[in-house]
Amino acid sequence: MVPIPRRGGLVFQVTVLYNQPEDPASFDEHYDGVHAPLAATIPGLERYTVSRPGPGPDGSKPPYHLVAVMEYESEAAYGAGMSTPEGRATRADLANFATAGVTVMAGPAGSVV
Amino acid sequence: MVPIPRRGGLVFQVTVLYNQPEDPASFDEHYDGVHAPLAATIPGLERYTVSRPGPGPDGSKPPYHLVAVMEYESEAAYGAGMSTPEGRATRADLANFATAGVTVMAGPAGSVV
Repeated sequence: MVPIPRRGGLVFQVTVLYNQPEDPASFDEHYDGVHAPLAATIPGLERYTVSRPGPGPDGSKPPYHLVAVMEYESEAAYGAGMSTPEGRATRADLANFATAGVTVMAGPAGSVV
Repeated sequence: MVPIPRRGGLVFQVTVLYNQPEDPASFDEHYDGVHAPLAATIPGLERYTVSRPGPGPDGSKPPYHLVAVMEYESEAAYGAGMSTPEGRATRADLANFATAGVTVMAGPAGSVV
């Protein structure tokens, strides 16, 4: 496989894509007030950004309401972090607000810039 | 709207999700050899990571083959960058390899961790 181009070393990235919720205001309130502070306590989590995409160039609603990107040093660090009480509580909390569906992807990542 | 939780200031994030290509090896070769180096020249691009998700816990193929996350200082910086010859060439290059489809989302982002 062609190596991932990178400036720094490889990290392990978890990308979480949240479908458009029925009630965006409630979703945002729970995400910002409960879920994000909870996820931030996961041991080994080195970077965690939250983005809310705007409408497309044609004004259409984006396919996802919220994009969370988390970085860990390695896949092992991710696995260890998710096995802690904090990791388990974060995963369990999804049922409290991500009822419209969520896609979680995880794999190696590298920085190009 | 509830403010995005953040540790640092807001940035403008572009999330690019590439559908599974028919020929992953050709896709990867073009992405790493041509597209990433080209995108890296876009003025104003401050951070650019590339992740290739692995299979899900049940062994299923992930919904996207590659996730690119780009950060700019602001939406204006993103717009200005994409209007340059480098930005236009990067966008035009998508037709050379992203034939299975690509989703581009853009919006404000903040760091939680």
